[in-house]
Amino acid sequence: MTPHQPEQTRRSARPVSPIDDFHAVIPAGGSGTRLWPMSREVRPKFLLDLTGAGRSLLQATYDRVSRLSGPQNVMVVTGGAHEKPIQEQLPSLADTAILTEPSPRDSMAAIGLAAAVLQQRHGDVLLGSFAADHVITDLEGFDAAIREAVTAARQGYVVTIGISATRPSTAFGYIHSGELLDLPGCTSVRSVESFTEKPDASTARNYLSTGEYRWNAGMFISKVSVLLGHLRDQRPDLHAGLMTIAAAWDTDRRESVLAEVWPRLEKIAIDHAVAEPVAQTGGVAVVPGNFGWDDVGDFNSLAALLPSDDNAGSKVVGDHQDVVRVQSAGSVVVPNSGRLVTILGLDDVVVVDTPDALLVTTRARAQQVKDMVTELRDRGLENYL
Amino acid sequence: MTPHQPEQTRRSARPVSPIDDFHAVIPAGGSGTRLWPMSREVRPKFLLDLTGAGRSLLQATYDRVSRLSGPQNVMVVTGGAHEKPIQEQLPSLADTAILTEPSPRDSMAAIGLAAAVLQQRHGDVLLGSFAADHVITDLEGFDAAIREAVTAARQGYVVTIGISATRPSTAFGYIHSGELLDLPGCTSVRSVESFTEKPDASTARNYLSTGEYRWNAGMFISKVSVLLGHLRDQRPDLHAGLMTIAAAWDTDRRESVLAEVWPRLEKIAIDHAVAEPVAQTGGVAVVPGNFGWDDVGDFNSLAALLPSDDNAGSKVVGDHQDVVRVQSAGSVVVPNSGRLVTILGLDDVVVVDTPDALLVTTRARAQQVKDMVTELRDRGLENYL
Repeated sequence: MTPHQPEQTRRSARPVSPIDDFHAVIPAGGSGTRLWPMSREVRPKFLLDLTGAGRSLLQATYDRVSRLSGPQNVMVVTGGAHEKPIQEQLPSLADTAILTEPSPRDSMAAIGLAAAVLQQRHGDVLLGSFAADHVITDLEGFDAAIREAVTAARQGYVVTIGISATRPSTAFGYIHSGELLDLPGCTSVRSVESFTEKPDASTARNYLSTGEYRWNAGMFISKVSVLLGHLRDQRPDLHAGLMTIAAAWDTDRRESVLAEVWPRLEKIAIDHAVAEPVAQTGGVAVVPGNFGWDDVGDFNSLAALLPSDDNAGSKVVGDHQDVVRVQSAGSVVVPNSGRLVTILGLDDVVVVDTPDALLVTTRARAQQVKDMVTELRDRGLENYL
Repeated sequence: MTPHQPEQTRRSARPVSPIDDFHAVIPAGGSGTRLWPMSREVRPKFLLDLTGAGRSLLQATYDRVSRLSGPQNVMVVTGGAHEKPIQEQLPSLADTAILTEPSPRDSMAAIGLAAAVLQQRHGDVLLGSFAADHVITDLEGFDAAIREAVTAARQGYVVTIGISATRPSTAFGYIHSGELLDLPGCTSVRSVESFTEKPDASTARNYLSTGEYRWNAGMFISKVSVLLGHLRDQRPDLHAGLMTIAAAWDTDRRESVLAEVWPRLEKIAIDHAVAEPVAQTGGVAVVPGNFGWDDVGDFNSLAALLPSDDNAGSKVVGDHQDVVRVQSAGSVVVPNSGRLVTILGLDDVVVVDTPDALLVTTRARAQQVKDMVTELRDRGLENYL
């Protein structure tokens, strides 16, 4: 996967100074079923080098956020199955910087736990939460947005980043932005009117025509006291459970408290638990992010991140010498087993070749790859998942 | 490849008595490039069990013709690269029953050599030539046609079998039959007016509408004296070379004579060298063959020979548990590497999975698979051929 060097790698050379009291939290979860069989339960999307950058998505996220937080202020929240590969991929991460969840409890529990542990360890610091499996292609734009978001967060807001929507995507949620907030040190921060679910195509087109909607990249920047305060107001039981766990985290009571409290924590996304209700009362702000961003949700969006391998729009994730196309345009090929992949007379096809499983589908069906994962599970073929 | 038992295996139980003085010759050549990557240069089509019969096409051909000739009267003509695998697949074949050509010289040299060696060894016996890589699905019909052909051949004709054309195929040559020949012991033998090349679609439809055209399955039955006599008349140099080689074949001069004579032999098909010109002078007869026959020229014709694996017309060559289809109809899948092959939302696709190479194409492109072989050769990827 060496020939193509995407933006973030080439631009990472310029050093920046870390932001005071700023801690980056990386929730590393989700299996990426729409990228099966490239992505697997034991080797999910965030552990993969999808773009040929030479770094996994998790590593690239670490590289990106540690420049802003300092390497010692990065925290990863993950499940037990992925603790070891994460340690291997991020050897400079301290053991205490990985929070291992006993079971998945969605993003509010993951980020809330990180906030509570950070507060326990460091007091009222600033927290920025960044998914482990997204791709960003303009580091300077990212830096500028996060610095402005931190400035707004210091003034008591929960701040999110609204990505400039370059197409009416139906695969992302949107942020409906309101008035400019005239905050000291901020030039482009607006209030958030609301968050939306993934829209249908015509709704998405309407969103873009108003100029008021941006993609929700799931980034949240806040003082831990502010985030935990909102959580206490909105979900007092979840807040109490997380505070109990955090108080025991760095003690020998961690396991016993986790065993007792964790299984009863509410499973809810941070969007529903905090961001949406707090936006209704004016507590959420948005910084426009005009950098390239993608959640690499399926083979189509992965393809969009890669340079063409020929003059017919074909994309290769891997060694392009392992792929031979004849009269086939626009394909997305992942040669990942060392074998030769040949395509004859088929346009816009997706071929993902791995040592134990092969997927053949079309770019138009990219979002439905999860249906194949469901089918395999229904047939008892879990060993391929 | 065990679940499906085609006709020829099930019907082979009934014993028949061999035909007096009848020798079966099996030219085993051709790489089957339209079945790549299933078929390879070192493991061509005739060595493969394409239909899941439990026997390779060569073995099935041997089983079929040895019932008529007797096992001791079967001869295989092949190239040096395939001598060993043929011995392994047909262990009852005597060493003297394999004629190994120093280099490919097309079908006239192969069959003419067999005829000349047979004449040298046995005198004026009858010879029937049968390709090693065709599929026949009605043994009794085949037996009846060959027995009638032998009867006509004893009376001095070169006899071919005209397969009842069940569709206007453009992949086969056709035999244009003429008047019924009122030969003793024969009820359906006709003269051959001419042989045709593969027609275009409208010509093929015209052929079928006349009722006078049948598929040319490349089978020839003749007395060796008759065949060699025609060869002497039509291609005297080729005849002389083959007679020289045959005279030395069972002596210690074989290698030296082959080295001297073989490379100068004319490369020509038996159709052009003998069948077509002799048909012009009334010397060729045709027996209607109303049995199922196919040359398994591509993945489409292979698919036609297999039972459906689901109610959407999908075919599997191999273990159908290795294939999972979701919303995909009419595919032809060859899972031949032990890996899981999954297809999502693609109809009429061909997926051939082997340990070192994968082909993805469509049934409509089945005839063009040879273009992929050409492309690989052009790119210097001969190790995959």
